[in-house]
Amino acid sequence: MSTVPLVSDEDASPAAQAVFDDIRETRGTQTINNFWRALAHNPAELERVWADVKRVMGPAEQEGRLDPLTKELIYIAVSVANACTYCAHSHTAAARQKGMTNELYAELMEIVSLAGRTNHLATMLQIPVDDAFDCS
Amino acid sequence: MSTVPLVSDEDASPAAQAVFDDIRETRGTQTINNFWRALAHNPAELERVWADVKRVMGPAEQEGRLDPLTKELIYIAVSVANACTYCAHSHTAAARQKGMTNELYAELMEIVSLAGRTNHLATMLQIPVDDAFDCS
Amino acid sequence: MSTVPLVSDEDASPAAQAVFDDIRETRGTQTINNFWRALAHNPAELERVWADVKRVMGPAEQEGRLDPLTKELIYIAVSVANACTYCAHSHTAAARQKGMTNELYAELMEIVSLAGRTNHLATMLQIPVDDAFDCS
Amino acid sequence: MSTVPLVSDEDASPAAQAVFDDIRETRGTQTINNFWRALAHNPAELERVWADVKRVMGPAEQEGRLDPLTKELIYIAVSVANACTYCAHSHTAAARQKGMTNELYAELMEIVSLAGRTNHLATMLQIPVDDAFDCS
Amino acid sequence: MSTVPLVSDEDASPAAQAVFDDIRETRGTQTINNFWRALAHNPAELERVWADVKRVMGPAEQEGRLDPLTKELIYIAVSVANACTYCAHSHTAAARQKGMTNELYAELMEIVSLAGRTNHLATMLQIPVDDAFDCS
Amino acid sequence: MSTVPLVSDEDASPAAQAVFDDIRETRGTQTINNFWRALAHNPAELERVWADVKRVMGPAEQEGRLDPLTKELIYIAVSVANACTYCAHSHTAAARQKGMTNELYAELMEIVSLAGRTNHLATMLQIPVDDAFDCS
Repeated sequence: MSTVPLVSDEDASPAAQAVFDDIRETRGTQTINNFWRALAHNPAELERVWADVKRVMGPAEQEGRLDPLTKELIYIAVSVANACTYCAHSHTAAARQKGMTNELYAELMEIVSLAGRTNHLATMLQIPVDDAFDCS
Repeated sequence: MSTVPLVSDEDASPAAQAVFDDIRETRGTQTINNFWRALAHNPAELERVWADVKRVMGPAEQEGRLDPLTKELIYIAVSVANACTYCAHSHTAAARQKGMTNELYAELMEIVSLAGRTNHLATMLQIPVDDAFDCS
Repeated sequence: MSTVPLVSDEDASPAAQAVFDDIRETRGTQTINNFWRALAHNPAELERVWADVKRVMGPAEQEGRLDPLTKELIYIAVSVANACTYCAHSHTAAARQKGMTNELYAELMEIVSLAGRTNHLATMLQIPVDDAFDCS
Repeated sequence: MSTVPLVSDEDASPAAQAVFDDIRETRGTQTINNFWRALAHNPAELERVWADVKRVMGPAEQEGRLDPLTKELIYIAVSVANACTYCAHSHTAAARQKGMTNELYAELMEIVSLAGRTNHLATMLQIPVDDAFDCS
Repeated sequence: MSTVPLVSDEDASPAAQAVFDDIRETRGTQTINNFWRALAHNPAELERVWADVKRVMGPAEQEGRLDPLTKELIYIAVSVANACTYCAHSHTAAARQKGMTNELYAELMEIVSLAGRTNHLATMLQIPVDDAFDCS
Repeated sequence: MSTVPLVSDEDASPAAQAVFDDIRETRGTQTINNFWRALAHNPAELERVWADVKRVMGPAEQEGRLDPLTKELIYIAVSVANACTYCAHSHTAAARQKGMTNELYAELMEIVSLAGRTNHLATMLQIPVDDAFDCS
C-alpha cells in the first residue's frame, strides 16, 4: 500500500515515459522499479532524481574513484540507518546485480552493525571530539 | 562535556592499559582517542568493542574482500545517518589516514546525500517493495 | 500485525467509548482509526493523546496561525524523517481530507527530500553553526 | 570544528564565487552561511545543491502553492526529526527572516513534539495501516 | 547557542513562575534546568510538558510498577537512539541523582549498544516478523 | 520478504546448528526465531551476536543489577526510537514471556512517547547542556 498509485507505462505522461526509456536503456532491462513509477506523477521531479541517480551511481569516471558496487554498499548503509524498508531492498538487489557476493554482504553486515553499536555508545557517552580530528 | 570522565593512562586499570597498548601497537600511534578513554571505565566492554573494531575494520583477509578505506567510508555513511557527531569526526579522520582524498570524500558526500534524499522519498510515498527484489 | 489487539466498539471501556464518541463528533465520521483502537487498552492515555491531537491539530484560533492543512504537512514531514510507516499513511490521508492537492503533495515531497539531502550533508561535514544564527 | 575547512571568498574558485554571488543577490545579503562555504570545495555539488534550494524554497509560483515561510517550517520539522543541529539553527533563522513570529514558532513546537510522541506510539504498537488510507 | 533565549526567574511570566515553583518543590532543588527555561516563552506548553513529566516519571503508584530510576534508564535509551544531546545529558544526570551506580550505567551501555547493533542487522536483512510474535 | 533466505534446521551448517542448539537449551523452547535463521548464513557472526545477547540479556549476575524483564523494556525503547519493526515485535514478545503485564507495557508506552516528545523539543530548541550535568 503506497500513498500514491504506481504509474503504469500506459498512464505515464510523455515526459515520464522519456525517463522510463532512459532508465531501461541505461540499466539494460525492461523493468521499471516501483520507486520510479511512484515518482512519475511528478515528471519534473522524476527527471531530476533519475538524473542524479544516473550521474552519482554510474561507472567511475576515472581511476581512483568509487566503483558502482562500492557505491551501492554505501547506499545500503545509509538506507539501513535511516530505516528505509524500500531502499534496503532495492539497493541490496542492485548490489547483487553489480556483483555483491554473499561474503561481501556478510562483511557489510558486520560493518553496519558495528557502526550501529559504536554510534550508540558514542552518543550515549557524549564523547567530546578529539582535537586531533580537527580539519577546519 | 561527556557523561563520564575520560580515563588517563595513569588512571587506567591494568586490563584497560592492556587494551590501550594493543590499540597503540595495532595503529602505530601513541594517541588513544577519547572514545576508548570513555569506555575504559568498563574494561571488559572496552576489550570487546576494541576486539570487534580490530577484527572488522582491519586489512582484507583475502582478495575480493573490502579494503580498510572502503570500510571507513561505509562507517561514515552509517554514522551520518545516525547523526553521531563523534563518529562522523573520528571515522572521517580515520578514512583520511587510510588514504581518502578530497575527491573521494566529495564522492562519498554525493552518495550519502542522494541516499538521504531518496530514503525520504521512498518512506514518504511508502513505496511497496518490488517482487523482483525478493531473495527470501 | 500489531503488538496489541485493536479494541472494537463492543470491547471498549466506557472511558474509551467516550473518547471514540468525541473523535466521531469532532471529525464528522463514524470511522475510528486503528491508532485509537490500539491505544484504547489504556483509556487514560487514549484520552490524553486525543486531547492533545484535538487541541493542536484543530482550526486556527486566530488569524496568522497555522491552518489545519499546513499542520498536517508538518506532521507528515516529521513522520517521514522518523520513518513512521503508520503515521506517514494516516497523516497523508488526513491532509488529503483537508484539501491537499496532488500539486501540494508534490511540493511537500520536494521540500522533505531536499531537507533529507542537506541534513545529511550538514551532519557529514559537521558544519559549525554561524554566529549570525544565535538567538540565545 | 568541521570535517573540512570553510572556504573564504578569497579561496573560492571562480565557479564557487559565481554561486556565492547568486546567493548574495537572491537573498539580498552579503553573508554566505557556513553551509555553502563548506560545500565550496566541490563547486559542482555546491552549484547543484544551491540550484535545488533556490528552486524549491523560493516564492510560490502560483496561487495555492506553499509560501516561503511555510516551506521553512516544514524544513525545520524534517531537520529536527533527523537531529541535524546545523539545519535546526539555520532554518529557524531563515524562518524568522521570512516572518516567523514567536507565536508561530510555539505552534510549530507543539506540532513537531506531538508528532514525535505519536510516531513513537505508532511504531511501538506496530499499528497496522487502515484500509481506508489506501491510495495505491 | 539555542534558538530562543533562556528565560530567567526575573523574566518569567507569573504562569511560568508557578511551574518553576512546582519544579523546585517537586525536585527539592533550587535549580531550574535549561530545558524548562527555554520552554518558558510558552507558559501553557511549559505547564503541559511539566505536568506530563511529573506524572510519568514520578514514584511508582503501586507495587509492580516501574520505579523512578528504571524510568530514567528507559528515557536515556530513547534519547540516545534519537541522538538527542541535551536529553542524553539531562537524563543521565537525573538517573545518577536517583541512584544509578557506575555498574548500572555500564549495564545500560551494553544493552543500548547491543540493541543498536541488532536493530541495524534486522533492518538490513528486512527480517520478517515471526508468526509467534502476533498479539493482534 | 527478507534480503536473504531463512536457514532451516536442515540447511544449517554444523556451526549454525550448534548455536541453534544453545538457543533452544538456553531459552527452553524448540522455536528458533527468524532473526537467528537469517543470520545463520554467516555462522561466525551468528555465534558472536548470540553470545552477546546471551551474556547481556541473561539473569542478573548479582543483586542490584538489572533483571531480564527490565532489560527487555530498555531494548524495546531503543528499537522503537530506531524504528526497527522486527525488533519492536520480537522484544515485546520476549518481554511478555518474562512477565511484562499490560499495565507495565502501558507504563513503557508513556515513557517512550514522552521521551519522543521532549527529544523533539530539546533538539528543536537546541537547548544548551546545563553546566550542572557535567561529569567529565
